[in-house]
Amino acid sequence: MKFISKKTGLAALAFGIGLSAAAAAWSAENLDAVMKRRGLTQKDVLAAAKTYVPTGKRDEFIVFSSGGQSGQVIVYGVPSMRILKYIAVFTPEPWQGYGFDDESKAVLAQGRIDGKDILFGDNHHPAISETNGVYDGRYLFINDKNNPRLAVIDLHDFETKQMVVNPIMKSEHGGPFVTPNTDYVLQAAQYPAPLEKGYVPLEQFNEKYRGAVTYWKFDKKIGRLDPSQSFSVELPPYSQDLSDFGKGPSDGWSFTNSFCSERYVGGIERGRPPFEAGCSQKDTDFFHMINWKKAAELVKAGKAKKVNGHDMISIDTAVAEGILYLVPEPKSPHGMDVSPDGKYMIVSGKLDSHTYVFSFEKMMNLIKAKDFAGKDPYGIPILDLKKSLHTQVQVGLGPLHTQYDSKPCVVYTSIYVDSQVTKWDYCEGKVLDKISIHYNIGHLMTMEGDSMTPQGKYLVSLNKLAIDRFNPVGPLHPQNHQLIDISGDKMQLLYDMPVPLGEPHYAVAISADKLKPIVRYKSGWNSRTDKRHAHRTRPGKEKVVRDGNTVRVYGTTIRSHITPEIIEVNEGDKVIIHMTNLERAEDETHGFAISGTNVNLSLEPGKTASATFTADVPGVYPYYCTEFCSALHLEMQGYLLVKPKGYKEAAVKATEGTVYTKADYDKQHKTNVETQGVIDSVVGYITARNYADFPSVVALVEDATEQLNFAADTKKKAEGFAAKEDWQNATLWAGQWWQYQVKAADIGLRAKTYLDQNGAKVIKK
Amino acid sequence: MKFISKKTGLAALAFGIGLSAAAAAWSAENLDAVMKRRGLTQKDVLAAAKTYVPTGKRDEFIVFSSGGQSGQVIVYGVPSMRILKYIAVFTPEPWQGYGFDDESKAVLAQGRIDGKDILFGDNHHPAISETNGVYDGRYLFINDKNNPRLAVIDLHDFETKQMVVNPIMKSEHGGPFVTPNTDYVLQAAQYPAPLEKGYVPLEQFNEKYRGAVTYWKFDKKIGRLDPSQSFSVELPPYSQDLSDFGKGPSDGWSFTNSFCSERYVGGIERGRPPFEAGCSQKDTDFFHMINWKKAAELVKAGKAKKVNGHDMISIDTAVAEGILYLVPEPKSPHGMDVSPDGKYMIVSGKLDSHTYVFSFEKMMNLIKAKDFAGKDPYGIPILDLKKSLHTQVQVGLGPLHTQYDSKPCVVYTSIYVDSQVTKWDYCEGKVLDKISIHYNIGHLMTMEGDSMTPQGKYLVSLNKLAIDRFNPVGPLHPQNHQLIDISGDKMQLLYDMPVPLGEPHYAVAISADKLKPIVRYKSGWNSRTDKRHAHRTRPGKEKVVRDGNTVRVYGTTIRSHITPEIIEVNEGDKVIIHMTNLERAEDETHGFAISGTNVNLSLEPGKTASATFTADVPGVYPYYCTEFCSALHLEMQGYLLVKPKGYKEAAVKATEGTVYTKADYDKQHKTNVETQGVIDSVVGYITARNYADFPSVVALVEDATEQLNFAADTKKKAEGFAAKEDWQNATLWAGQWWQYQVKAADIGLRAKTYLDQNGAKVIKK
Repeated sequence: MKFISKKTGLAALAFGIGLSAAAAAWSAENLDAVMKRRGLTQKDVLAAAKTYVPTGKRDEFIVFSSGGQSGQVIVYGVPSMRILKYIAVFTPEPWQGYGFDDESKAVLAQGRIDGKDILFGDNHHPAISETNGVYDGRYLFINDKNNPRLAVIDLHDFETKQMVVNPIMKSEHGGPFVTPNTDYVLQAAQYPAPLEKGYVPLEQFNEKYRGAVTYWKFDKKIGRLDPSQSFSVELPPYSQDLSDFGKGPSDGWSFTNSFCSERYVGGIERGRPPFEAGCSQKDTDFFHMINWKKAAELVKAGKAKKVNGHDMISIDTAVAEGILYLVPEPKSPHGMDVSPDGKYMIVSGKLDSHTYVFSFEKMMNLIKAKDFAGKDPYGIPILDLKKSLHTQVQVGLGPLHTQYDSKPCVVYTSIYVDSQVTKWDYCEGKVLDKISIHYNIGHLMTMEGDSMTPQGKYLVSLNKLAIDRFNPVGPLHPQNHQLIDISGDKMQLLYDMPVPLGEPHYAVAISADKLKPIVRYKSGWNSRTDKRHAHRTRPGKEKVVRDGNTVRVYGTTIRSHITPEIIEVNEGDKVIIHMTNLERAEDETHGFAISGTNVNLSLEPGKTASATFTADVPGVYPYYCTEFCSALHLEMQGYLLVKPKGYKEAAVKATEGTVYTKADYDKQHKTNVETQGVIDSVVGYITARNYADFPSVVALVEDATEQLNFAADTKKKAEGFAAKEDWQNATLWAGQWWQYQVKAADIGLRAKTYLDQNGAKVIKK
Repeated sequence: MKFISKKTGLAALAFGIGLSAAAAAWSAENLDAVMKRRGLTQKDVLAAAKTYVPTGKRDEFIVFSSGGQSGQVIVYGVPSMRILKYIAVFTPEPWQGYGFDDESKAVLAQGRIDGKDILFGDNHHPAISETNGVYDGRYLFINDKNNPRLAVIDLHDFETKQMVVNPIMKSEHGGPFVTPNTDYVLQAAQYPAPLEKGYVPLEQFNEKYRGAVTYWKFDKKIGRLDPSQSFSVELPPYSQDLSDFGKGPSDGWSFTNSFCSERYVGGIERGRPPFEAGCSQKDTDFFHMINWKKAAELVKAGKAKKVNGHDMISIDTAVAEGILYLVPEPKSPHGMDVSPDGKYMIVSGKLDSHTYVFSFEKMMNLIKAKDFAGKDPYGIPILDLKKSLHTQVQVGLGPLHTQYDSKPCVVYTSIYVDSQVTKWDYCEGKVLDKISIHYNIGHLMTMEGDSMTPQGKYLVSLNKLAIDRFNPVGPLHPQNHQLIDISGDKMQLLYDMPVPLGEPHYAVAISADKLKPIVRYKSGWNSRTDKRHAHRTRPGKEKVVRDGNTVRVYGTTIRSHITPEIIEVNEGDKVIIHMTNLERAEDETHGFAISGTNVNLSLEPGKTASATFTADVPGVYPYYCTEFCSALHLEMQGYLLVKPKGYKEAAVKATEGTVYTKADYDKQHKTNVETQGVIDSVVGYITARNYADFPSVVALVEDATEQLNFAADTKKKAEGFAAKEDWQNATLWAGQWWQYQVKAADIGLRAKTYLDQNGAKVIKK
């Protein structure tokens, strides 16, 4: 047994290389044995093979799912059903620094209501931006039913960029939906309320409570909604619900369901029947047909009135101008799903076992012929249900939503009460197949299934109850998203995915190859405004600037130190810290947190993020990097010192904890020279192979080269102090030089492993 | 095409049953075809078969993983690697109502620092409670490094129950760890700081900055930490780190690593070498051996001094009483892992390629013989490294943590720089196998691998970088937990699991059959105090109580209505809403949110939760159930009305939106009678089978019976109004009667599906 020096420590490099190169032996246990041991059927193994994604391989589709009351968006892969990310939207989330750094606080502040921070959302329906009716993978929209708000996520970095509060609604369920070119994003009100702010007694429900649909103008170039160009159409106090935009022949129109067109006001505590009874009494409700293109022209022509400073077309104007019609639909409907060709609108009423297929052509002919079945109490023309229908099909008890297959005429409808999915043909009006799900499905989703180009292949059932599906985790259960293979004639259940946080409502899936997110920001980037940060810091330019009682820190992070390492302020100072992550390497995120405070930044490569706080309690506050970034991660630390008011500096000279000598320096220097030899051998191994054919390895080599440049700079520093016989500084800088070598070795070994596992070849030089 | 009545709607019951009973055909695509299409190797399919868990089947182990900077705990299953739940701990989380209801706010308030809410945590190390050194599955502990706090989660409902703030530390990494009977829970300080509150200049680092280890007394009966019975041992200003308790022969002792025993203070901004250089210069650091049982006796004997009101044994007392020793260890270590038999302590220094196995027996002999190698600057005796060692083994570059197999002497060590796991024998001191992981592993975990009874089978590698493993999701990557099969001689990589939120550090895995969480609370339960709620409400006892400007609402939720449905208050009132979920059915959670506010409750069956707010803006605020609970979920709504100050009631009589006649009542009544016939047929189907053999179905039948009882009560109400010729109320109550029938049918169909899919048999009656 020999005591270990740094030199023999690094000799493990060669050892590690030797063993990792040995191919793993094929397991002794064969497939039959595994099936027997684990009780798997052939069908199970087939499902496993259809969903398993081996290490390093990619999923075919990416799902963006509502996170329900978590207020976030869930991102997962199909067919693996592995959750890749929760994107923070309406709720502060510290891993992402969301709601903790000043930049994202500014986004959340856009969502204030009556001046108050609303720190959660109840999000329901994600929508991907479209170009010519096809998902373009650029932006994602998501609503908050409760508040009611709409957020914009940029898919180039998967961050929330904007939030708007609906100026006239009190709640909003039926949105967002986008026009085929994402010119507008739709929100439909849910529970009727006065559109003007303020109190109106419930006794005036029929007269003064209203619904509405809002059309938010979206600027695709800059990726932001433009409230000044947005408008609404006033609607009766029916509870508006899910909606969809027309496309193809129906482009220019939007369709919005409603429930409780009975206009019932409950009061079970007063002996009245509850809302659920009074809101489901009639056999039909209405969907609203709105000519939004003409509505936009009316707004431009000055025919809107201002409500809370926002343009709104009144019911009377909408009726007079012929842009608003009602069509009876099965009562208490959920889905409103326009066919890919824009010719049909499929609606299911959850208390009717039939799904209704409406014909846009028939409805337009009725409108053109002014062939109306009557008017509602607000004067809106009503089309005749039977005359508007293409067909109706008995699909099961509690039908809700419909999604489209890539095969013509084939659709899937979620059946809540039966806990099934029904596959049927909406052209010929016949049921093709049914499959049981577990349990009580709400929405369902096919791949790009609400666009003009559905991709087929898979369907996800978003179930509302999980009950016995998973290992128990207490009274609050995960939700269950079930993956179903729809490639064949019969649907096949493939996978149960528990949703660990939030109750998703709707989800959308896009071909993975349409997404091209970045892996780093331009250096010194404000990711929330997508501009260079006004307070970015370049390496070597770190500084602390005092202006009265405000102290502004311009800091940086890089493996494995924070600059500055000591920040001294006075009690009562306002402290603003701007941290820039200088890293260029993929996945080299650093964090920055200060003990006992809410200061908590996530610094992806290139990002500048800021924290503002008042140093109101004197004391000693360690800070550190919260992301395990390197071998010396735990040592990536510093101290914030808050001096009490009136504190008088004592002339205390610090003593070094450990004192180093020439011998220490010589030992370190020798180690470093030997280490360089080992590194050179790794570099030789890599450059002797066709590493330039592997973009990931090229990025690693660039990163390692940068670390070796830092090592070279630090070597000079150490040797300079040695020349001056300052052995303390010489030894420590020599130590830092070695640290850079270790970082380079770390990266080099990752590159080597990658080459070994991906069939790199030796090349001639 | 025929227009559909409620009757034919429910006829779909029979239809649904018919189709769901048809067995799905075996897919035409066979395994070879799937492998070819998806590019899977035999090894991939074997891994898929080893990890796939079919619908309704359970995982073998449950993992509790740190959620890192998310501040939460992640729960997932092994081998499926499906995430089952995020448990909210240090960060508010709205899906769980955590930090939104008054009850959980009280838990978070325990974690305040200097009176301020800290709204995130940087959690690192989960620990499961033990009985006789074996996981008992009752409680989970998790720390917050940044603040520094410790939380207690009760595994009977997976909720956070308690939080304590360390009274003397400023940061805390090396905890929690539990004694073999969970009498004490350990926290070790990280970055040295003054133990008393207040400012001390960094120049006095050596003299006045300190580390410490805190032993929190835990009362297993009530599941709470007892600060009054807890104490600390003062330690030198080395950065204490990971720790472990002894067991078996070493029971009574604890072991705590350190780094930066150089006591280096950085200052790169002042031209000094950074912390990373100065904290990694020496070849060794120290681990601390502390006799905690004797320390507890010393505290009882009054030998502790009070610091910030907390009992602390000073270094001097600890040395004088012989309860504190230092042992040199490889520099900058991460793990401190005591063997299942308590005889060995395995430590790895991340800058040394060797792992060190210390012998407890040898160390105790040195202590007994007072055979010390010297003293540190604080007078603590130091044992000789070589004399303390059992063996040392060269395992790879950057070794961090070690976990134990069920096979004697077999361990696994994470190798950060090499990105590998090394399997080795700590008795004989030899390497057995290595496997590459992706990339840069931190902790690793075997099943129950830090208890006295490791279970072997699987290992999870908690990797720090994911880079190219998954579909890209922007600059902030998911982490990667890799599942490795350790049942054979060679380790086999099985699965890559992305972690979508937070950066986990450590995780613990327990046999799933040790967890027996509840699925419902006793009715009217405060889940955070685990007592009957003082403001619970029983059905029919809902009320609104005004006391001055305080309005207290005693409300309930049940499918599908909230009582009360209308709440009227005045501007400026303090409103306190207590909601009790009356449901007894598993997974029948309701939510409660009020538009434009932060009122957001999660009401699992039986739970009472509360929201307190000031109604400061007059207006109309819809509220609703946020959990999709039933077909009439969207109609589970109500209105909060805030009347402006000085508002004078106008004598406005409300008009009904829709008026009903005798014909409406007769139609509804007829439908209900027919519906009952259909329900009876489903009931007959179920009761003709051995449903009593299926506990899940028994629960469903109980739930359905309850709904049918509600239906019977409501039937009486409807018929009563009909007798009085009040057709409005008669029709609406008849509608409500039908709603209860639909709920019963929903449940009945779920029961039927379960019976069909689980091989129920027809029985004679």
